[in-house]
Amino acid sequence: MSEYEKLVARGRELAVLGSTASVLSWDQETYLPPAGVAFRAEQMAELSSLAHTRATAPEIGEWLASCEGANGKLDPLQRANVREWRRDYDKATRLPNRLVKELTEATSLARERWVAARQERDFEQFRPALEKVLALTHEKADCLREGKDGLSAYDALLDEYEPGAEAEALRPVFAELRDAIVELLPAALAISEQAQVNRLRGDYPQAKQEEFNRAAAMAIGFDFDAGRIDTTTHPFCTGLGPRDVRLTTRYDERDFTSSFFGVLHEVGHGLYGQGLRADAFGTPAGEDVSLGIHESQSRLWENQVGRSEAFWRVWYPTAREVFGNLEGLEMDEFLLIVNRVEPSYIRVEADELTYNLHIILRFELEQALFDGSLAVADLPGAWNEKFESMFGFAVDHDSNGCLQDVHWSLGALGYFPTYTLGNLNAAQLFDAAREQIEGFDAQLATGDYSGLLAWLRENVHEKGRTLSPDELMRAATGRPTEAHHLVSYLRQKYAEA
Amino acid sequence: MSEYEKLVARGRELAVLGSTASVLSWDQETYLPPAGVAFRAEQMAELSSLAHTRATAPEIGEWLASCEGANGKLDPLQRANVREWRRDYDKATRLPNRLVKELTEATSLARERWVAARQERDFEQFRPALEKVLALTHEKADCLREGKDGLSAYDALLDEYEPGAEAEALRPVFAELRDAIVELLPAALAISEQAQVNRLRGDYPQAKQEEFNRAAAMAIGFDFDAGRIDTTTHPFCTGLGPRDVRLTTRYDERDFTSSFFGVLHEVGHGLYGQGLRADAFGTPAGEDVSLGIHESQSRLWENQVGRSEAFWRVWYPTAREVFGNLEGLEMDEFLLIVNRVEPSYIRVEADELTYNLHIILRFELEQALFDGSLAVADLPGAWNEKFESMFGFAVDHDSNGCLQDVHWSLGALGYFPTYTLGNLNAAQLFDAAREQIEGFDAQLATGDYSGLLAWLRENVHEKGRTLSPDELMRAATGRPTEAHHLVSYLRQKYAEA
Repeated sequence: MSEYEKLVARGRELAVLGSTASVLSWDQETYLPPAGVAFRAEQMAELSSLAHTRATAPEIGEWLASCEGANGKLDPLQRANVREWRRDYDKATRLPNRLVKELTEATSLARERWVAARQERDFEQFRPALEKVLALTHEKADCLREGKDGLSAYDALLDEYEPGAEAEALRPVFAELRDAIVELLPAALAISEQAQVNRLRGDYPQAKQEEFNRAAAMAIGFDFDAGRIDTTTHPFCTGLGPRDVRLTTRYDERDFTSSFFGVLHEVGHGLYGQGLRADAFGTPAGEDVSLGIHESQSRLWENQVGRSEAFWRVWYPTAREVFGNLEGLEMDEFLLIVNRVEPSYIRVEADELTYNLHIILRFELEQALFDGSLAVADLPGAWNEKFESMFGFAVDHDSNGCLQDVHWSLGALGYFPTYTLGNLNAAQLFDAAREQIEGFDAQLATGDYSGLLAWLRENVHEKGRTLSPDELMRAATGRPTEAHHLVSYLRQKYAEA
Repeated sequence: MSEYEKLVARGRELAVLGSTASVLSWDQETYLPPAGVAFRAEQMAELSSLAHTRATAPEIGEWLASCEGANGKLDPLQRANVREWRRDYDKATRLPNRLVKELTEATSLARERWVAARQERDFEQFRPALEKVLALTHEKADCLREGKDGLSAYDALLDEYEPGAEAEALRPVFAELRDAIVELLPAALAISEQAQVNRLRGDYPQAKQEEFNRAAAMAIGFDFDAGRIDTTTHPFCTGLGPRDVRLTTRYDERDFTSSFFGVLHEVGHGLYGQGLRADAFGTPAGEDVSLGIHESQSRLWENQVGRSEAFWRVWYPTAREVFGNLEGLEMDEFLLIVNRVEPSYIRVEADELTYNLHIILRFELEQALFDGSLAVADLPGAWNEKFESMFGFAVDHDSNGCLQDVHWSLGALGYFPTYTLGNLNAAQLFDAAREQIEGFDAQLATGDYSGLLAWLRENVHEKGRTLSPDELMRAATGRPTEAHHLVSYLRQKYAEA
């Protein structure tokens, strides 16, 4: 076996262990009886320890060095795999065990404190734990960027979620988006005032919602032979193997759209999972590349496709048939409702337009927290000030403010920007698909999504990690991630409607 | 860490891996999308290989030798654990890798051939593969009994499923049971003729059946905080951890009793699983002891409890309420139906009385196959002859005869007798409980099963593997497994009714 083949074999072994851990997680979220939770943690820890030992073994370093020395003999895909294996191996071996352990303990405590603090609307309870997590995250960032000249500490974190992304490059793009949103907001609010949400409320039995969700998921290309949809409190999508992608959703029997758009979102993630190259499973070429690209797939199907008039021209008659209680609601009224803008405190409840303001606020604050220009103790004040300046109304208490998200308690700084990157990429990829696919709009108008899916498969899914997110966007759209595609899309929806 | 503690730690690690494999299996039977099957096999193989390496490591032999040398310093429970660990270690290390590999290949092929042969009712297609499996099973038996004077080859196999059981001891017990069944059959058939099965048939929606099954399962003590019931083609019960026991069932919407008695059966297994000592999880003291004891728990709740008049006096009114369509059927008629005897070709469809004839037939034939007194080519003839002499009618084709069960294709000789052992033990344990529990019948008459369950917990579940099945039966009932308890139970039901 050549060194390259040894890396392939080890990668597959790790992917098998990783996917087994994913089965355990999925089961925990869906069907695990309550009393089984403690032991499940032990099973997860055992698998994770087995995988860590196999992933950080010194022989991998030797195999990598040997492959890197003989790079000329490898084909481009093999070279990309070696580059990504190196990335994974360095990440897995750069952090001293002591730091990993301290981080695990600190984030576990911080998460607990965060839950309590949020419940009691009392930031002070959370503050010391967050300070500890921040200090350790700094250490982690320094380990990750050691020897990498010019890589900032914050970018070292960002790189965990969005390889190669840099805050410096994101700032002007996000600023352009922010300005556009602020400019669009009054028009969007004026339109949204006409939306009569109460007229959508009704009786939507879960079984009917499941039927409708499933029909739409199949129509846009989700393969139920290689996937399924279950019910959980917090919806997600996870890949348990090369032909096994599981989505979840939750149901509101007074309003079918919350589950429906949730399912479209998860189906977008799921199509990416099902579109990865099964023959490359266990190598980087068969893996998803970043959170920002993943989110672009979910947002594209949820928003660019799923909130469009073209989509509902096809699907509204079916919705009326399935649910039997939409007769009184015209499609135009329905479209107004599902596209309405409603600024609110909470990110996860936000509409398409203001969602990005929530992200930009977090992006700015987490950089300030991280570089020390904002003390943790001053976070609530800074949050509230920024929020009011962006949204035009004041935060009432910290659980509707800086205590609403779990991310920072877990040390996940650099994570938030990938949500807006996903929105930007979605709009940009959708525009590129429209440009490159002949008869694109005619296809969508007849409910034929196969051309779009094939284009995404070829330009996104099947690339795996052979290209960086930036390279992928350039290859697929000719340009790096830019603001104007999303801005045009939002402008068309809210200013030119 | 002492050698004993090292064995405890390794045992726990193996139990964690084993339970993880059980999650994968459970998921495969319940929710795995069809296209995920191939990769699931790879996950299972990886876990199994990891576990095998850890279970057969030479250091275990050293730790065991050290503990065995210092046996005096161990308490009785620790000594029992060491004895059972030795048993497991020897079993895991006695078979040469070559033989394990050949057996895996041969049984995998034989299973495939068996499926085809059964479908086409053509024994010849299966014969060569079964011959191969038999030859390898012989080799396996010889490895297992090496150095164990007086252990017959067949008993070495039996011991895999029922530790310490011997064919010589089972024969007279089974013979007594067989004679009694043959004697009872005419009376049982005469009573059963009065059962009007069609009057039970109706419309039993699955959701209603789930509700009724769940109510009964909870009433007899199944803890849904530490377990659940799902739907599969072939019902089973599996433990995924110390507080996580999963049952499955299937539904016939024309007859609620098939799922109901199936659930009582699996709940019996599940109560055993939930009754194992969680604090001893991963050591033999926290594990189930044998198939014959396991089956006694399922049969006791399914038959001794679940088919009794006392049970339905409590539950028939509820059944009538839940299903709303049993008004016309009196409880006495219902009891006749669910206790009816209907001799048939197929073991898994058999009633309480003739079920054991199916087992005794297989027990006799597999011993003859194994000692060479019956050639595989002559199996169909021998089967059919024996069947007709026992049941009084002829087998129409081999798929209703010697091709009906999967067991032999898997090399599982010595497995069948544990089913009848389960029936015998169930009757015997139930009699002992009745004798030892004050007010036993009054409790059951009011639907209070807590006394019986507590007695089973103390005398069966919590024993784990500290006692052999024979020791367990003697400790709980004062006698080894005997025929007369089951015989009396059947006689009372069918001859004295």
